[in-house]
Amino acid sequence: MPTLVMKFGGTSVATLDRIRRAAKRVGREVANGYDVIVIVSAMAGKTNELVGWVEETSPIFDAREYDAVVSSGEQVTAGLMALTLQEMDIPARSWAGWQVPLKTNSAHSQARIEEIPPDNINAKFAEGMRVAVVAGFQGISPEGRITTLGRGGSDTTAVAFAAAFGAERCDIYTDVDGVYTTDPRITSKARKLDRIAFEEMLELASLGAKVLQTRSVELAMRYKVKLRVLSSFDDNDETAGTLVCDEEDIVESNVVAGVAFSRDEAKMTLLSVADRPGIAAAIFGPLAEAGVNVDMIVQNISEDGRTDMTWSLPVNQIARAEKAMAAAKSSGEVNFAELVTDDGVAKVSVVGIGMRSHAGVASQMFKALRDEGINIKVITTSEIKISVLIDRKYMELAVQALHDTFGLDKPA
Amino acid sequence: MPTLVMKFGGTSVATLDRIRRAAKRVGREVANGYDVIVIVSAMAGKTNELVGWVEETSPIFDAREYDAVVSSGEQVTAGLMALTLQEMDIPARSWAGWQVPLKTNSAHSQARIEEIPPDNINAKFAEGMRVAVVAGFQGISPEGRITTLGRGGSDTTAVAFAAAFGAERCDIYTDVDGVYTTDPRITSKARKLDRIAFEEMLELASLGAKVLQTRSVELAMRYKVKLRVLSSFDDNDETAGTLVCDEEDIVESNVVAGVAFSRDEAKMTLLSVADRPGIAAAIFGPLAEAGVNVDMIVQNISEDGRTDMTWSLPVNQIARAEKAMAAAKSSGEVNFAELVTDDGVAKVSVVGIGMRSHAGVASQMFKALRDEGINIKVITTSEIKISVLIDRKYMELAVQALHDTFGLDKPA
Repeated sequence: MPTLVMKFGGTSVATLDRIRRAAKRVGREVANGYDVIVIVSAMAGKTNELVGWVEETSPIFDAREYDAVVSSGEQVTAGLMALTLQEMDIPARSWAGWQVPLKTNSAHSQARIEEIPPDNINAKFAEGMRVAVVAGFQGISPEGRITTLGRGGSDTTAVAFAAAFGAERCDIYTDVDGVYTTDPRITSKARKLDRIAFEEMLELASLGAKVLQTRSVELAMRYKVKLRVLSSFDDNDETAGTLVCDEEDIVESNVVAGVAFSRDEAKMTLLSVADRPGIAAAIFGPLAEAGVNVDMIVQNISEDGRTDMTWSLPVNQIARAEKAMAAAKSSGEVNFAELVTDDGVAKVSVVGIGMRSHAGVASQMFKALRDEGINIKVITTSEIKISVLIDRKYMELAVQALHDTFGLDKPA
Repeated sequence: MPTLVMKFGGTSVATLDRIRRAAKRVGREVANGYDVIVIVSAMAGKTNELVGWVEETSPIFDAREYDAVVSSGEQVTAGLMALTLQEMDIPARSWAGWQVPLKTNSAHSQARIEEIPPDNINAKFAEGMRVAVVAGFQGISPEGRITTLGRGGSDTTAVAFAAAFGAERCDIYTDVDGVYTTDPRITSKARKLDRIAFEEMLELASLGAKVLQTRSVELAMRYKVKLRVLSSFDDNDETAGTLVCDEEDIVESNVVAGVAFSRDEAKMTLLSVADRPGIAAAIFGPLAEAGVNVDMIVQNISEDGRTDMTWSLPVNQIARAEKAMAAAKSSGEVNFAELVTDDGVAKVSVVGIGMRSHAGVASQMFKALRDEGINIKVITTSEIKISVLIDRKYMELAVQALHDTFGLDKPA
């Protein structure tokens, strides 16, 4: 029988009623003829409770014990889901990560999946079991201890199972009904996408459209797993949600797939830096060591052996960045005239694989912003993305203007 | 290093503060030079929550899924206890039942322990680990699934570990400070026993002194594990609590160790039963099938081929017993004149290994009851116990009189 992977997040299994509702969706796919692997998260709130206890007990905790405690939440949901399916006369059983076994490395609390031997579960499918309910987010280390994959690891678990079992599709049930062209709170014209390419999803996810964990999308892209994101709260059919897939599976699409944004950004500029080989390393090394997440970087043209260096970072990391630069200056590592900080900017990006074959996207973007009187402070580009830093107060206006100019309210 | 097993029940680990308090006790034993195996229950209330979810999901549940869900509570406590000990700079780690592995049979939710190979834990002790924190109440079946040992199984886990590791002692921390000569709510003269023999503890436990699970005492007796029951809420030293031990380890003791009682008993008598071989089986077979827990049984002398048969049972099982007897009569299986039920009796017992070598305990007991004007309705005796059924209204008076007459308020 063909295999389907269905993943239910914490809000989709928050109560016994919601577990029943999720089980009914699983039952429909069983009736459709699938053997189903269900990946479950902990009931909403449970993981936070367990993490809270660990952190209160031991501020700098042993990650191996953290994993032993926190993994229990998914174990509970898996058992309850299996029982619910059995009540519906669907042959089902639960599997903890170590029972599958889902083998990981030993990097506790952020472990990487190494192997999922499908034999144990396939043997049960061969015996007539129709649903394997697997506790998400967890595995077993070479030392035989429980590992967890880090927050959002249940998405990654689901994709990894879909790859290991050659599943026809991996459906991620969540509390949104798909991926949108932009945040509907910014413009009511935002439209749900039927399909989106892996690469586009990666750019949108890392830019703040928090629908799918980045790692799970990367994994799906590598193994060409068709990923579908859909709501566990709507009644939906086979065409619901958004399919995240290989760009070859997208017949027609807009040049730009979506507009992403990040509100709380800051911009820093080092004025009159001595422009010598290794100067970038001398600046961004100390920033990285201070835990600053530098995003965009722009270097001005050099004049008289000196240049200006600009970068963006989250607003709440300004203090540590300034401290790192002051230290670099006083140690003589970096020679500069002044550090100028602008804590009132936001980042807006347009993303789309269509850009690869369409020239003029950048100029159309800049023109749309100019027409609204919005000044661009920094620009960076990649093959499928153009990002700009602008004054924060114009962010909503910029998103709306870009959504309009690229016609995102209408399907391709 | 010598090994000690310490078990903490649900109320002793109900909060992070109480876990810290328990960990301090463990730390003292580590300082005393012991390698310690700590057995923990789930935090008070957690098991009930998990059981409630299972029962609400599936009234007639798959016990394998029940075990997968319910065992998670102990896993959480074990991790938190290990973290707490690490914070005190004591090398510790947690072990789920399957990691030890504690091997059981496949009787899910009431599994029997089959083997505890000590190699894995001993290897860690050899590397310098000082405390192994083990999730109580759980193991792994031959099929690789999680099993639980049934309610109270954490006591049994503790004793089994003490036997498997040749521990010097098994300390059971609970919410009472030991075993008493009788319930202190009945008489303020009740006195905590320093030592009690396994056999006495078994008789007292099954009679209602719910300090230790019967199975754990049986196991301790078989493997000669010294069991100590003590409070986790008092500050106590090496002599605190009650030591449950082989009678050889009890130098001096009263003839009677304690007075037990059971309040809600009933008495049934079949009048004028045809006295033929197999009549007892014909009566008590149907009662057992109806789920009636028959306790005391007395058969009168036979006259003219007919006799009276009397037994005791819990009050709340009267209806089903009467139904079973009516059915046995109408089917012709049992021929009797009348069934008389007395729903107002209680059972009072005196227990003590000293009875074996001391005659006159029974007559002293009957005399004490007579002096209070208490009529005895049924008597049964064993080697170390004498039980009587009396009117329920005299129960407290009887317990007080027996406690006095055997001098239980004074040590031996």
